[in-house]
Amino acid sequence: MAATSPTPALTAERILEATEEVLRRHGPAKATVVDVARALGVSHGSVYRHFRTKAALREAVTKRWLDRTSEQLCGIAAADRDPGARLRDWLWALFDAKRRKAGDDPELFATYMVLVDENGPAVTEHIDDLTGQLARILRDGAGTGVFTVSDPAAAARVVFQATGRFHDPGYARDWMRPEAEADFAALADLLLRGLSSP
Amino acid sequence: MAATSPTPALTAERILEATEEVLRRHGPAKATVVDVARALGVSHGSVYRHFRTKAALREAVTKRWLDRTSEQLCGIAAADRDPGARLRDWLWALFDAKRRKAGDDPELFATYMVLVDENGPAVTEHIDDLTGQLARILRDGAGTGVFTVSDPAAAARVVFQATGRFHDPGYARDWMRPEAEADFAALADLLLRGLSSP
Repeated sequence: MAATSPTPALTAERILEATEEVLRRHGPAKATVVDVARALGVSHGSVYRHFRTKAALREAVTKRWLDRTSEQLCGIAAADRDPGARLRDWLWALFDAKRRKAGDDPELFATYMVLVDENGPAVTEHIDDLTGQLARILRDGAGTGVFTVSDPAAAARVVFQATGRFHDPGYARDWMRPEAEADFAALADLLLRGLSSP
Repeated sequence: MAATSPTPALTAERILEATEEVLRRHGPAKATVVDVARALGVSHGSVYRHFRTKAALREAVTKRWLDRTSEQLCGIAAADRDPGARLRDWLWALFDAKRRKAGDDPELFATYMVLVDENGPAVTEHIDDLTGQLARILRDGAGTGVFTVSDPAAAARVVFQATGRFHDPGYARDWMRPEAEADFAALADLLLRGLSSP
């Protein structure tokens, strides 16, 4: 008998990878669970054993996409460094991560914009995750006296909203403009000054 | 002969008023110059004598709508008062004007969103107008030492972008949320602190 290469186990992660590929190829309106199953060489029943509905699969792939950004930033938030520098780096890293997502693969980005619109809870969770990281930095800074912030969670919310222009996907088309970096740097300066003012 | 009431002269302003009414009634996709002329009881040629194309008419009505907000704020920017209080009032007035436009007449607001998308130059001019007013307040404050701002025009741009969530129409659906006012107040506080920090 000829040797066959072993079929890798059908994990949730493999299904999500294939789903992203299918979404990229067919677009969010046309992609189906059958397409995903075909791409994996399995029956659509096998996919449904991991994700009970098409909606659940779409939500999971959206969450995975959003989580990639949070995971990149998590290390900056948790680092044992001056909170002022950490905050600046974190805000830059957020802008940069979103900008690269939008610029490197505009089609996939557009696809995810559609999915994000469908998946309120995944987005709320993502924003909570990011503002939680911000709050951690602000809390550390309040502890060392770098920031004059009495409510780090509230301040995190304000900073997140104030920088929306540089991470809210609705502004994606402005992110490549030549003035975007200088605008962002000036905004980060002003916020840092406000957070540190006596 | 029976007395007839005199027909008012056909001014640009009357045409623009009628155009807004027609847009409200028919929506931006269907409204035509003929509809406007009919509403005024004149020939469409008379309308074209004031606005040479349909595009020019749509641009003028958009500009008029945007200008209404700038005019409301202009008095605050120019007032002879403490620049800190003036800045706070001006930012609130901007949020409030936009929020009322969106909330009081959502259909007309949606119509103008379509027109605004078509009319890049009118929007750029509007934003220049508003940031010019902001720069005036910041310049006055830099003069009296209230603000530690070396470039009022650049700082105005930053403040305008930082508050985008409370005046950019893309966020209109968030403006009526119960937390919006507190969020806005906290953001204004942080910005004022940053602008005044030594």
